[in-house]
Amino acid sequence: MPQFMDVHHGMKGITAEQLREAHNADLAIEKEEKGVHFERAWADPESGTVYCLSAAPSADAVQRVHERAGHPADEVHPVPLSI
Amino acid sequence: MPQFMDVHHGMKGITAEQLREAHNADLAIEKEEKGVHFERAWADPESGTVYCLSAAPSADAVQRVHERAGHPADEVHPVPLSI
Repeated sequence: MPQFMDVHHGMKGITAEQLREAHNADLAIEKEEKGVHFERAWADPESGTVYCLSAAPSADAVQRVHERAGHPADEVHPVPLSI
Repeated sequence: MPQFMDVHHGMKGITAEQLREAHNADLAIEKEEKGVHFERAWADPESGTVYCLSAAPSADAVQRVHERAGHPADEVHPVPLSI
C-alpha cells in the first residue's frame, strides 16, 4: 500500500493528550476507508506542526479520514521512497 | 534523546538511490556529532519534499550533520510529541 506524509499547521500548543485523541479519532474512522491506516504521528507544539505517516490507496482517502475526524490536513504528500 | 523532523524542499525527481546515498552520507557524518542519529527518511519526488526523522541533542546538531553531508535542511522541527 502506498505511504503518505501529511502535515497540519496551526496546532500551536498541542498536548500529548490532544495528539493521542486526534490519532485515536483517525484510527476509529479509518475503518470506513478501505486500506487506510494511520501509522505514526509527530508534533511540534511550538511551531504548531503535526506530521502523520499513513498507508492508504490514495491521498484523497487519507484526507477524507482526517476531514471526518475534524482535522483536515494542510498538505498530503505521497512518499513512495522511504528508508 | 529528543526527536526532530526536518524537511528539505526542491528535491524534485529524487530517486531511491539518491535518497539512500543522502541518508548514508548522514549516517557516515553523524558520528562526528555526539548523540545524533538519523532514523528514517521519506521522499516525495513529485513535489520535491524530503522528510528526515532523527534523534539528537539539538536542532543545530541535526543541521550541522546535514550541512556537512551537503544537503542542509530548510526546516528542522523538534517533535517532542509522537505516537
